[in-house]
Amino acid sequence: MAVSVQAERTDQAETERSGPAHRSRLDPWVEQYAARARGLTASQVRALFAVASRPEVVSLAGGMPYVAALPLDELADIAARVVRDRGAHALQYGSGQGDPDLREQILQVMQPAGIRAHSDDVVVTAGSQLALDLVVRIFCDPGDVVLVEAPTYVTALGVFASYQCQVVHVPMDDQGMVPGALSDAVAAVRASGRRPKLLYTIPSFHNPTGLTQGPARRAAVLELAQRHGLLVLEDDPYGLLGFDGSVPRALRADDPDGVVYLGTFSKTVAAGFRVGWATAPHGIRDKLVLAAETATLCPSNLTQLVLGEYLVTSPWYEQVKAYREVYRERRDALLDALAAYMPAGTTWTVPGGGFYSWLTLPDGLDATAMLPRAVADLVAYVPGTGFFADGQGASSLRLSYCFPPPDRIREGVRRLAGVVAAERDLLADLGAPAPLPARPTAAPSADQV
Amino acid sequence: MAVSVQAERTDQAETERSGPAHRSRLDPWVEQYAARARGLTASQVRALFAVASRPEVVSLAGGMPYVAALPLDELADIAARVVRDRGAHALQYGSGQGDPDLREQILQVMQPAGIRAHSDDVVVTAGSQLALDLVVRIFCDPGDVVLVEAPTYVTALGVFASYQCQVVHVPMDDQGMVPGALSDAVAAVRASGRRPKLLYTIPSFHNPTGLTQGPARRAAVLELAQRHGLLVLEDDPYGLLGFDGSVPRALRADDPDGVVYLGTFSKTVAAGFRVGWATAPHGIRDKLVLAAETATLCPSNLTQLVLGEYLVTSPWYEQVKAYREVYRERRDALLDALAAYMPAGTTWTVPGGGFYSWLTLPDGLDATAMLPRAVADLVAYVPGTGFFADGQGASSLRLSYCFPPPDRIREGVRRLAGVVAAERDLLADLGAPAPLPARPTAAPSADQV
Repeated sequence: MAVSVQAERTDQAETERSGPAHRSRLDPWVEQYAARARGLTASQVRALFAVASRPEVVSLAGGMPYVAALPLDELADIAARVVRDRGAHALQYGSGQGDPDLREQILQVMQPAGIRAHSDDVVVTAGSQLALDLVVRIFCDPGDVVLVEAPTYVTALGVFASYQCQVVHVPMDDQGMVPGALSDAVAAVRASGRRPKLLYTIPSFHNPTGLTQGPARRAAVLELAQRHGLLVLEDDPYGLLGFDGSVPRALRADDPDGVVYLGTFSKTVAAGFRVGWATAPHGIRDKLVLAAETATLCPSNLTQLVLGEYLVTSPWYEQVKAYREVYRERRDALLDALAAYMPAGTTWTVPGGGFYSWLTLPDGLDATAMLPRAVADLVAYVPGTGFFADGQGASSLRLSYCFPPPDRIREGVRRLAGVVAAERDLLADLGAPAPLPARPTAAPSADQV
Repeated sequence: MAVSVQAERTDQAETERSGPAHRSRLDPWVEQYAARARGLTASQVRALFAVASRPEVVSLAGGMPYVAALPLDELADIAARVVRDRGAHALQYGSGQGDPDLREQILQVMQPAGIRAHSDDVVVTAGSQLALDLVVRIFCDPGDVVLVEAPTYVTALGVFASYQCQVVHVPMDDQGMVPGALSDAVAAVRASGRRPKLLYTIPSFHNPTGLTQGPARRAAVLELAQRHGLLVLEDDPYGLLGFDGSVPRALRADDPDGVVYLGTFSKTVAAGFRVGWATAPHGIRDKLVLAAETATLCPSNLTQLVLGEYLVTSPWYEQVKAYREVYRERRDALLDALAAYMPAGTTWTVPGGGFYSWLTLPDGLDATAMLPRAVADLVAYVPGTGFFADGQGASSLRLSYCFPPPDRIREGVRRLAGVVAAERDLLADLGAPAPLPARPTAAPSADQV
């Protein structure tokens, strides 16, 4: 049995190398896939993350929350109570829109961001990723244009690709998406005869840059979206995780009719619940509920009820504050180590919250080509090109400080700095870096979060 | 606040009555939806199910498993143990393909149906509904034809509509889908220049008829699918719930390369976990994993680990046997009551397992028109037209015996028989039934399962 599995894996690796002609021999259905399935491609660096998950590697790649900080005994008691006392409800099908009590509680979770809504406006989904998928599903025909930050969240790009959208990147400065560039992008799209449909943005502690739109920037972005009739899709996983304790005001707070807001408990409580939500204008909400029922019937009552009980019986916002401290300490460790170790010519963003910093290498270095060397030196990151739909980002990479403890972060940065310096020296000597060969293997999707 | 909600609901109800022109005033985004969003329509009888969920109504409508039969104390202890001892794993992001241990266990769950597979072939999803959605997503371009039984599962039709597939129904006899009719349907589709892409079938204890394909029928269906190059999408939520204790051999057992098998724990353990799976040929599996990661990143580790621990530490197959006895007793109650109370000219199927019987009314009666009268007489069912994409089924309806206890089932059938008799008499007197006006209200999706 083990032998046959090994053989299959080798076949797959060969197929990946030798392309579609070879593949058709192995997958008899290859001619039958939908056109949208062509948008489903594995990350080119996926293979390396199998190696990067070995304990000796410091992974600055994945966006995994540090759930070990949670009160596990308390959550265990809550889970038991929910199953024992409300099992006939928790283990049954539920509302397609999500548990009504949890939707009420979500209103409170959105309050710090200035959002006032009715629980009827909230649609709970199996993670906010699914809410994102469903919004694109109901809005985007093939060829419709989605405007996004440059760079943006990897798996949002995956969703846009899977619905055959065209992605247009809007440049960022240290306040996020640049309004003038947004105007120019909309004009260029219109001039080409295409229709800009959505403006997807992560205004707070942005993935992958960690940057945040200030109040004036948010007003300018909203004003442009309204002027151009763009529906704003506001993705806000990190808004409560600002290191100075303040919560940026959501775009949704100032435009309830023009913004679909995506929220999640993955970073503020735990990702393993897979509970997120969309808060949407009424007409869109109606369609989202129907789309959600078609996709999954309903979210899990069990995870919703456990989460709801936790929000009611635990000081959940104190836990959010504890998370902020954990991540602030790690952010500081990252920034200190970058300043201490990185060679000249390297730059990086200074995140005010969330999980990530965006690093740009000295001129001429390529983050994808460098990754195998970095992994050989026991440190991993996500190369920048994955965060763009158009091939930008070769000289940049994303560093996550959310999961490893501070001393591991420092050690990881030290190793990475050594790799960068060696690559820079090699480039100076030879004119171009020589990447190590990558070995394709099955891998977790650590690069997808 | 309550007043404004009431006003919104009234607006929505009015919109539903007065159509798109009116709607555009209420939903400023109405011109922006994707073409596929037109396939998202609320069930015409949805409104009535709000009324039908009142305790005095015997609902023979929803397909809710009787989860109160589960060992709740044991499940509570398991949930607590998983969170307390493995919380850092259970509350974290997991593999996009699903927990590796659970995928091994799923192999055992599929064994009684004769399926031999490798855990690499299994993709766990947030309910098998999502697996169905993803298979259609990767295979069906707009206009592609999906062949289905006549009638078939309501929310499968919802998925096909949301991906703009054309549905072609294949007539059934008491052994399920008729092979000759399948041949004819494929020939007609080909003759019209369209491409039949998928054959969607529920071969065991079919929803909504309760019928099961025998071994010869299965062989004939598989042979035709192979001959015509149709990928078979085998939906098998009820296969373990046969009342004589035998488990029908899955189509997948005899054609690993030509069948995508959909399984779920919703009916054999509990629907509230939202854990289902697809078992697929390798090439399709690769694409399914990518599509699943794009849609939801990963299924919930928490529900997967609790389920896995339950499968390991509890006699789960004994629980399946207990469920069989619960449902067999209820099926018997239904059949006895139908025989005792239903007026002449009414016919129904005799399910050998699962949750449903399909009833056909005396000539001239319309199940949709009759539903408001039935609900007024405190009994509910799902009218037949929802199980067809083409308007068939007006004289039929689905009765679910899975949730109410036997005495309630008998009482429900007694009430329903009275409604049928009254409708028949009215028809004899007046020539046509006069439906009561339905009041549109928000409603759970009890008709969707």
